[in-house]
Amino acid sequence: MSDATPDRLVRVQDNLVEMTKLVRVAMVCATEALLSADVHLAEQVISDDSAINAINASIEQSCLEILSTPQLTPKDIRMAVASLRMSTTLERMGDLAAHVAKQARLRFPYVSVPAELHETFAQMGNIANAIVERTARVIETNDLRYAADIQAEDEVMDAIHRELFGKVLDPTWSHGVEGAIDVTLLSRFYERFADHGVTIARRVAFVVTGENYGVSDLAAAAETE
Amino acid sequence: MSDATPDRLVRVQDNLVEMTKLVRVAMVCATEALLSADVHLAEQVISDDSAINAINASIEQSCLEILSTPQLTPKDIRMAVASLRMSTTLERMGDLAAHVAKQARLRFPYVSVPAELHETFAQMGNIANAIVERTARVIETNDLRYAADIQAEDEVMDAIHRELFGKVLDPTWSHGVEGAIDVTLLSRFYERFADHGVTIARRVAFVVTGENYGVSDLAAAAETE
Repeated sequence: MSDATPDRLVRVQDNLVEMTKLVRVAMVCATEALLSADVHLAEQVISDDSAINAINASIEQSCLEILSTPQLTPKDIRMAVASLRMSTTLERMGDLAAHVAKQARLRFPYVSVPAELHETFAQMGNIANAIVERTARVIETNDLRYAADIQAEDEVMDAIHRELFGKVLDPTWSHGVEGAIDVTLLSRFYERFADHGVTIARRVAFVVTGENYGVSDLAAAAETE
Repeated sequence: MSDATPDRLVRVQDNLVEMTKLVRVAMVCATEALLSADVHLAEQVISDDSAINAINASIEQSCLEILSTPQLTPKDIRMAVASLRMSTTLERMGDLAAHVAKQARLRFPYVSVPAELHETFAQMGNIANAIVERTARVIETNDLRYAADIQAEDEVMDAIHRELFGKVLDPTWSHGVEGAIDVTLLSRFYERFADHGVTIARRVAFVVTGENYGVSDLAAAAETE
């Protein structure tokens, strides 16, 4: 039985990677839908979210079964618990991609983002993509250098998020209250998405090292590994 | 060893209730600080968040230790895993209270919420308080009637959140872009806080029944218990 456990944990890990890929597609398509006011693509992202939720439910079930297996090693237990929590976080990342898509759908046939901010949101989409791509890799390889990358990308995302607040509040802002709220909420969705990537990176660091890492310690974790 | 486990789970449950009480104080004080522009109270909420984070870390450690105990019952495993996740959710609720307090601090000596919306935010604060009070009770008693209450309160919160969007976007809105963004983000913090209460209610329902409950099923879970 204890021989079987690592196999089942490997399958959970595969499911997490698969889930991360779906989240990646969701956020890439949501950004595309947002910047091109493509309502069909937005609808697709929203309806495809159920596939992400289904993998989450299946991972939860598997992890509870694994945790009921006798004679797990401490690392197996950490991995099963961390997988459960990573799955929850990925599910939330999928929700955030769906939130972006819903915003795109809400303003159709108009583009929810003012023209002068298209490039900024394209950049946020690229950072989100980079983060989720490294999230898949850190789950797949347990190589904490990807965790450090995720943290670095998250810092760039935070800086853009803060900058956008400044732009919206500037006296030259010409897109009214609705435009300001759209940009503020969208920016927050991307910023939260990136934060969740960091959370997953920390969970992997915990599995690998048995230590909890704080906000700015992932680079250190990668070095001491 | 297996005799010892329920005791340790009971202690974790006590810690969760204690954490819920701190979260409740945080949100009540944050709302008070917000509506009275009390910067000292806001500072206190922000610094007290570390106590909530510390309980979270201690619960995580206890749950991992419990999960390493041989011969747990399936319900013990569900409870340990659910406790871990409830703790994460409570920690996030504490963060949201701190976000409200930070907003109060940001606009000091002004009140971040326009006078005509004071009552609305006081109401959101009251609902948040009711939700977190019932969250403590559902954790303490495992009585799913509290879970159904939490869901009902969450629906009221959602309705207020939607209404506020309407007010901010109304042509008569006279508090500019900054006022609109403040209200939108604050409203979202309360709405998310309530959602997290529902998440905890679902986790308890899962522990009690072994079934996962969806968005509108908690009342049914309370009845079939």
